[in-house]
Amino acid sequence: MNAIGVDVGGTKIAAGVVTPEGKVLNEVRYPSSGPTERLLSSIARAINDVKDGYEVGGACLAVPGNILATENRVIFSPNLHTIEGVDLEQEMRRRTGFDITVENDANAAAWGEFRFGAGARYDHLVFVTLGTGVGGGVITHGVLMRGAQGAGGELGHMTIQATGPRCGCGNRGCLEALASGTAIQRRAREVAAEEPNSALGRLAIERRVLGEDVTRLAEEGDEAALSVLEEAGLWLGIGLAGFVNIFNPEVVAVGGGVSRAGELILDATRREVHLRARSPARDLVKIQPATLGPESGVLGAAALARDESGEYVLGT
Amino acid sequence: MNAIGVDVGGTKIAAGVVTPEGKVLNEVRYPSSGPTERLLSSIARAINDVKDGYEVGGACLAVPGNILATENRVIFSPNLHTIEGVDLEQEMRRRTGFDITVENDANAAAWGEFRFGAGARYDHLVFVTLGTGVGGGVITHGVLMRGAQGAGGELGHMTIQATGPRCGCGNRGCLEALASGTAIQRRAREVAAEEPNSALGRLAIERRVLGEDVTRLAEEGDEAALSVLEEAGLWLGIGLAGFVNIFNPEVVAVGGGVSRAGELILDATRREVHLRARSPARDLVKIQPATLGPESGVLGAAALARDESGEYVLGT
Repeated sequence: MNAIGVDVGGTKIAAGVVTPEGKVLNEVRYPSSGPTERLLSSIARAINDVKDGYEVGGACLAVPGNILATENRVIFSPNLHTIEGVDLEQEMRRRTGFDITVENDANAAAWGEFRFGAGARYDHLVFVTLGTGVGGGVITHGVLMRGAQGAGGELGHMTIQATGPRCGCGNRGCLEALASGTAIQRRAREVAAEEPNSALGRLAIERRVLGEDVTRLAEEGDEAALSVLEEAGLWLGIGLAGFVNIFNPEVVAVGGGVSRAGELILDATRREVHLRARSPARDLVKIQPATLGPESGVLGAAALARDESGEYVLGT
Repeated sequence: MNAIGVDVGGTKIAAGVVTPEGKVLNEVRYPSSGPTERLLSSIARAINDVKDGYEVGGACLAVPGNILATENRVIFSPNLHTIEGVDLEQEMRRRTGFDITVENDANAAAWGEFRFGAGARYDHLVFVTLGTGVGGGVITHGVLMRGAQGAGGELGHMTIQATGPRCGCGNRGCLEALASGTAIQRRAREVAAEEPNSALGRLAIERRVLGEDVTRLAEEGDEAALSVLEEAGLWLGIGLAGFVNIFNPEVVAVGGGVSRAGELILDATRREVHLRARSPARDLVKIQPATLGPESGVLGAAALARDESGEYVLGT
């Protein structure tokens, strides 16, 4: 049976009708801005519009922030405050007739990679998404690791340098504070100031340096830009080494916008994982790019809607 | 059915016949020293002697170090090198007639706490053992998190201060390098040198300061000793906050010799977890002492021997 996956982001809502094999049959996108009532209407409209003419067996909402899955409720969402505290299951049932479930967006994307992407042939997957922040999701023994309240898998806020730079969450030295797109931008501006004659330094005099500038200049061979990405890759490796020791996964898949820098980051990451993780786990694990791109949320949410209903055996 | 749990330590082997309810009916202890052949004979003798007169349905060996559970083999064991590489299942079958399984000692202890101790009423438990090193085990959704090779749950070698002190594993700033008994002793000697007029400082002039000295002096109110334990508690809290964000557990149980310092360490730990972990996970979790003491390995291994055979439903 087909299922609907809805990826509720800070700026847009993407909803798709997805087959059991992970093919998207129909997709709609709407903006996610506005107050709570308008947001809920937009999500409901996305569900109602996308299912039009398709037989579907369930729907799951992938939402950003800390969720209380047991109550299908978002506790805290820095990029989508209007969704906080709403009883999403009840609101969606009323507006669409569907019994939806709610999952953290990174957990849903992890499940997408597990079912259809980088982890499709494995039982143990760690998924890390590098964007403005750092999110993650873990599948261990074929089970999505949600924890007691569905709030598990918050990989971005593991401390890797207790005295390190301030994180958006208020603490210091979280993985997110050192390897996110935001961290790369901050570090790029520092390095630009230290090396004004580099391509990175010259650009910074003209205008504000963005993450994609760093990747482009690094691809063009600018040493300063390369060093920024390598440093982020090294911090990422310190974090991933911890996950390798903790989860003993077959694959660590790295997704999100920053991962477009690819080997310019992952090369240093692999070196650091090899240095810091322990045998036999470090010898087994493959550190590789996620393969589904921005569709992972819709695909994973749809798969969760199905797998939760018990129609599918995990890992098939 | 009763089962045998064997805790193979660096200095001694403890084997027990354990009931399904976690009662130890019979127990033997032998030294674990000597070359490989003698060690294997001692383990086999412990199994054969302890089962004498009891009906038992299975046996599990809890062993220190990095294991390849899929092959019932220890890869690397810093405190018991002679066990490395041995096919324990085959050796024990030949010597005892038993089909044994092999589990990492901290994972087995975690399972003991999960079945009979601090985690008995929960589905999500993180167990951390503070001794010479720092070990750990995780039960998530009622499943012992072994990972792909059975090497999972290595919580002590998560980096929490990348530029921190050297760890026994060769890296820097692992949780073990900052919150283990070894770390406390090292820090106690540094603080003793800085504060020669404290009780800790005066003792250090007389003789080598041990971990238990620090606890005793702290209990007597010595500020220097108290500060050493508080600092270790703070580092432990930084590590546990990461685990709370990652696993969203109901309980984090802290065991091992160092945990005898109790609230002198855990007070600072709880404060730091509250500061660094995220809601709702941090509001749910209880950070508390493990309850089984040194018996957790034997109890957990015996329970694993049973639970693996499918006789028991997890969490009952």
